[in-house]
Amino acid sequence: MSMKSKPEIGIIMGSDSDYPVMEKAIEVLKEFHVSFEVKIVSAHRTPKRMKEYAESAIEKGIKVIIAGAGGSAHLPGMTAAFTTLPVIGVPVQTKTLKGLDSLLSIVQMPAGVPVATVAIDGAKNAALLALQILAINNKKLQKKLVEYKLKMENEVIEKDKKLLQ
Amino acid sequence: MSMKSKPEIGIIMGSDSDYPVMEKAIEVLKEFHVSFEVKIVSAHRTPKRMKEYAESAIEKGIKVIIAGAGGSAHLPGMTAAFTTLPVIGVPVQTKTLKGLDSLLSIVQMPAGVPVATVAIDGAKNAALLALQILAINNKKLQKKLVEYKLKMENEVIEKDKKLLQ
Amino acid sequence: MSMKSKPEIGIIMGSDSDYPVMEKAIEVLKEFHVSFEVKIVSAHRTPKRMKEYAESAIEKGIKVIIAGAGGSAHLPGMTAAFTTLPVIGVPVQTKTLKGLDSLLSIVQMPAGVPVATVAIDGAKNAALLALQILAINNKKLQKKLVEYKLKMENEVIEKDKKLLQ
Amino acid sequence: MSMKSKPEIGIIMGSDSDYPVMEKAIEVLKEFHVSFEVKIVSAHRTPKRMKEYAESAIEKGIKVIIAGAGGSAHLPGMTAAFTTLPVIGVPVQTKTLKGLDSLLSIVQMPAGVPVATVAIDGAKNAALLALQILAINNKKLQKKLVEYKLKMENEVIEKDKKLLQ
Amino acid sequence: MSMKSKPEIGIIMGSDSDYPVMEKAIEVLKEFHVSFEVKIVSAHRTPKRMKEYAESAIEKGIKVIIAGAGGSAHLPGMTAAFTTLPVIGVPVQTKTLKGLDSLLSIVQMPAGVPVATVAIDGAKNAALLALQILAINNKKLQKKLVEYKLKMENEVIEKDKKLLQ
Amino acid sequence: MSMKSKPEIGIIMGSDSDYPVMEKAIEVLKEFHVSFEVKIVSAHRTPKRMKEYAESAIEKGIKVIIAGAGGSAHLPGMTAAFTTLPVIGVPVQTKTLKGLDSLLSIVQMPAGVPVATVAIDGAKNAALLALQILAINNKKLQKKLVEYKLKMENEVIEKDKKLLQ
Amino acid sequence: MSMKSKPEIGIIMGSDSDYPVMEKAIEVLKEFHVSFEVKIVSAHRTPKRMKEYAESAIEKGIKVIIAGAGGSAHLPGMTAAFTTLPVIGVPVQTKTLKGLDSLLSIVQMPAGVPVATVAIDGAKNAALLALQILAINNKKLQKKLVEYKLKMENEVIEKDKKLLQ
Amino acid sequence: MSMKSKPEIGIIMGSDSDYPVMEKAIEVLKEFHVSFEVKIVSAHRTPKRMKEYAESAIEKGIKVIIAGAGGSAHLPGMTAAFTTLPVIGVPVQTKTLKGLDSLLSIVQMPAGVPVATVAIDGAKNAALLALQILAINNKKLQKKLVEYKLKMENEVIEKDKKLLQ
Repeated sequence: MSMKSKPEIGIIMGSDSDYPVMEKAIEVLKEFHVSFEVKIVSAHRTPKRMKEYAESAIEKGIKVIIAGAGGSAHLPGMTAAFTTLPVIGVPVQTKTLKGLDSLLSIVQMPAGVPVATVAIDGAKNAALLALQILAINNKKLQKKLVEYKLKMENEVIEKDKKLLQ
Repeated sequence: MSMKSKPEIGIIMGSDSDYPVMEKAIEVLKEFHVSFEVKIVSAHRTPKRMKEYAESAIEKGIKVIIAGAGGSAHLPGMTAAFTTLPVIGVPVQTKTLKGLDSLLSIVQMPAGVPVATVAIDGAKNAALLALQILAINNKKLQKKLVEYKLKMENEVIEKDKKLLQ
Repeated sequence: MSMKSKPEIGIIMGSDSDYPVMEKAIEVLKEFHVSFEVKIVSAHRTPKRMKEYAESAIEKGIKVIIAGAGGSAHLPGMTAAFTTLPVIGVPVQTKTLKGLDSLLSIVQMPAGVPVATVAIDGAKNAALLALQILAINNKKLQKKLVEYKLKMENEVIEKDKKLLQ
Repeated sequence: MSMKSKPEIGIIMGSDSDYPVMEKAIEVLKEFHVSFEVKIVSAHRTPKRMKEYAESAIEKGIKVIIAGAGGSAHLPGMTAAFTTLPVIGVPVQTKTLKGLDSLLSIVQMPAGVPVATVAIDGAKNAALLALQILAINNKKLQKKLVEYKLKMENEVIEKDKKLLQ
Repeated sequence: MSMKSKPEIGIIMGSDSDYPVMEKAIEVLKEFHVSFEVKIVSAHRTPKRMKEYAESAIEKGIKVIIAGAGGSAHLPGMTAAFTTLPVIGVPVQTKTLKGLDSLLSIVQMPAGVPVATVAIDGAKNAALLALQILAINNKKLQKKLVEYKLKMENEVIEKDKKLLQ
Repeated sequence: MSMKSKPEIGIIMGSDSDYPVMEKAIEVLKEFHVSFEVKIVSAHRTPKRMKEYAESAIEKGIKVIIAGAGGSAHLPGMTAAFTTLPVIGVPVQTKTLKGLDSLLSIVQMPAGVPVATVAIDGAKNAALLALQILAINNKKLQKKLVEYKLKMENEVIEKDKKLLQ
Repeated sequence: MSMKSKPEIGIIMGSDSDYPVMEKAIEVLKEFHVSFEVKIVSAHRTPKRMKEYAESAIEKGIKVIIAGAGGSAHLPGMTAAFTTLPVIGVPVQTKTLKGLDSLLSIVQMPAGVPVATVAIDGAKNAALLALQILAINNKKLQKKLVEYKLKMENEVIEKDKKLLQ
Repeated sequence: MSMKSKPEIGIIMGSDSDYPVMEKAIEVLKEFHVSFEVKIVSAHRTPKRMKEYAESAIEKGIKVIIAGAGGSAHLPGMTAAFTTLPVIGVPVQTKTLKGLDSLLSIVQMPAGVPVATVAIDGAKNAALLALQILAINNKKLQKKLVEYKLKMENEVIEKDKKLLQ
């Protein structure tokens, strides 16, 4: 699944069961008209595929990788091990430990290999963070992010008005 | 404290007591010869200063902000609230809860305002992540990061050899 | 939403999704006929609105602020950063970490800026605490609180009697 | 131990071993020249003394009670059960669970009996919160709190300047 | 609610909402034909009633007290403060923190005032523990407990047989 | 190690490294002149010895067993599996998880086999609980426990007086 | 319940309520045509049965034991105490603490008596681990495991293709 | 570092800082005269080396891999992803979260790729588990493990005797 022929952002997830969470990232990227691709890449079940994905990402023009995983969530960290691209990790909620396991597995990376971790199930913010990163060299995108912030602000004010009634 | 007149990376921390942790970020940026500035900006004790810092960062040419804080660690999230620049949050270890409070305060951001969270006391990785972000549009820096990865790899192999003896 | 033209207590919350929790505070204040206002003020999505609310609260006659938020719950602490009024923080339960994140984000404030934290989803107690604070200089309210305590006591005894049957 | 004959703030703690933590509250109250008294009152070892203290506090002119305790920290909540005065709870750090036990014991109060909980070992903030509460009806104290906030702000700026050197 | 005129075991709980959990204790005591009484006694909402209950328990012939409570669960510990009878604490599950708060509030008692804590929602075991205590001086009850153990053993073996089919 | 020829209380611990913690129980029993014996019995390293100890305890005249263990602390629960005597479990602090592992291992027993759990490292309270249990049928011991409570109360008052100076 | 007359793998669980979780292990062993037996063996309710099972397992030809239990999960560790066979522990999810109690009870074994712990509710992996252990001396089984890995890999790729559509 | 030319057990660790913990495994293997090799292999800093190590282990005659790592501890799980050999994971204690992060990162593996997890810093048990696995097809080793168990038992009894004196 991809939006354009030359994706700027790569979204990977350990299992199709992570899709309902990661879909939030896709929606944001579509809203901002930024090209992306989506793949199921499991660190544990398809380790070679993961290695290849991570190693070839730069050449393919990918600029930021968003990786979602749950439990012993090794996908973001291992992807980061195989590339120098910024990797954003999304800890996916788990049935038993509610994503605390996913969060600690992703965020507590050793010195040398960072993963930019967002909230448990925080795929929407992963996409926004990826956009903020791209916007550093993209004035138009930067402007859109400012507008997005204003829209959020207005939505709060609208909701507040409704509360008054 | 700043390295050059026009800093690309802004490092802020809630208190000078966070400096020994955040210093690791400074060392990395110096090693990579990337310009930065360092400021003590407390979300709770200097909220206006924080607002101003965050709001003026883009104009000043800052591209990435690294924010370290402990306990009810609001600095990274509030900085992110006032800017569209990518903000990297460093949860600083606390005396009682060991930084679990800092981590949850920083990483569990609501949809709309992301913070790229690294490990507890993970300032070194915060700097590397900032460099990875800058490297997207900087081939030279990208090359340096690849070399850095190779150096790390070699260091492990060197240590392994020592172990053999 | 407000009860009287000159509110004594300001209730703010980060999102309208917090309303079902915060409503418990409103019910108590209505029961005690104490004036209040309710607003949606998000630390992250409307940071300026939050700053303005906090900075102008004293002048408006607000005596106590009750602030509810979930996850990286920065609203109570940041409100406290912008005012010297007592701020009562209500950690709102979250889907994944059940409000432990909200609690630690709110309660672990650094020295200098206190937040009076109540239980997770404890909006009712937030209102009672606000009333206890107002009652220090309000004999009538003080008397009502004593009656409220007696009523609670009697309710327990009534329930105990029912148990006997 | 008390500062003046007619204390406005009552500081109680479960054990003299809590004194080094609770001392921070005393220092703040002295700095603000607000009268207080300090007593060792154990919920578990002197329950009657605790009951009497709580029940007689209003008559004695006490306006706010600060109660520090660790582990199964029942002192703040039980004091709140016996009075309608605002009770501020200070969770004292414990050797094994680092105060997480104290925090949950104090903050998770049932509806009807609030405790204004501050950070683990947060006695300084307990005192500041008590002052904020008294300041609602004390313009002079209110002004001092504003000055205190400014002083904190300046201290951060001073430290930032030192960092520059 | 009581089984006989002279109860040997006192079951108290902080709220009638704890009844479905505490009922498991009642069933066990009925099964063993041991006299008991059940009361709603809230440490926070009926502190005097609690004090009186605890102080008069020995005179009334109570030998063991079972106390169930949730959240800031002070009932078992405070009951233990007012009596020298063995007090068994049942941490009742809570909506947000699942009873971890109740457990730590009950079990982490300071030296001098023990509470015999059982599992979260472990009212059945609380009753069995009370029976084990009474059985020390009651050969007949001791024999019944041995039979109960055998019955449990046989139930497991029966279930195992069913599994075979 | 035992105090008298016919011990009433059996103290067992998984390892001699638990002795410094369990010693607090011994001191209390000596102070109350109640007979006891102390043994190292490991559930994991001496499972047969544990079984034999638990199975023969009643015949030997033991009335209460105090069992201390850390980590995967199975000694109290397994002892309870082999006897109908009341078993008091002392979770011993561990180096990594600070005794949270020991606590959960001991307290979360399944329905049918209770363990009376005290605080982490709470050996002193384990002994006091054992005494409270014995005191049900021992007026003299009961009286001593009342005196002990009074002594504790006076110690608090003495410490409070020292604080005044 | 057993698959063949001479089982190589013994699956035990503390209660029939653990069966829905442990069934996943059975399915895997059936898929690989490896002989096994299944028994309900409770460490706490049938401690002698557990001892006998563990002590006789080697003679019966059992090579690996898989033991599932929840809460104060002592079955895997106590089984390991009575045998030198490898014991794989499956922490079963609990209602209140979600299996964190089961996990810590099983994994934190003292030096000398290991339990090979898998994820909470991870019975499927327990079976795969048992197969990996048997495969060390079974080329055919080893080959099947390699095929199983390939099948998993292909399933991920198939799911990825479906995502594309 | 290796004991013999043809190692049966491979010990790998993420960093030389893990050596003091992993050394306990080496001591046990030496005591049992089982051949092994030790290597520093970092999942994050030497991912290709890790892949190669895991992929070639079977051919080299390795039968069991012991992998120790801390924090976002991906080494055991990723090694398991690249081989069908049993992989034993040792969660190494971390400075801030005490190894809870390491434990959850290692143990919460998804279905399909098991890791046999031992206690935090439990390298000694990792070695014993590896020996138990090898002993399935090695009567001599099996006998040694039985003797080891007896020795442990005797050591406890010896310590108990010393306690008596």
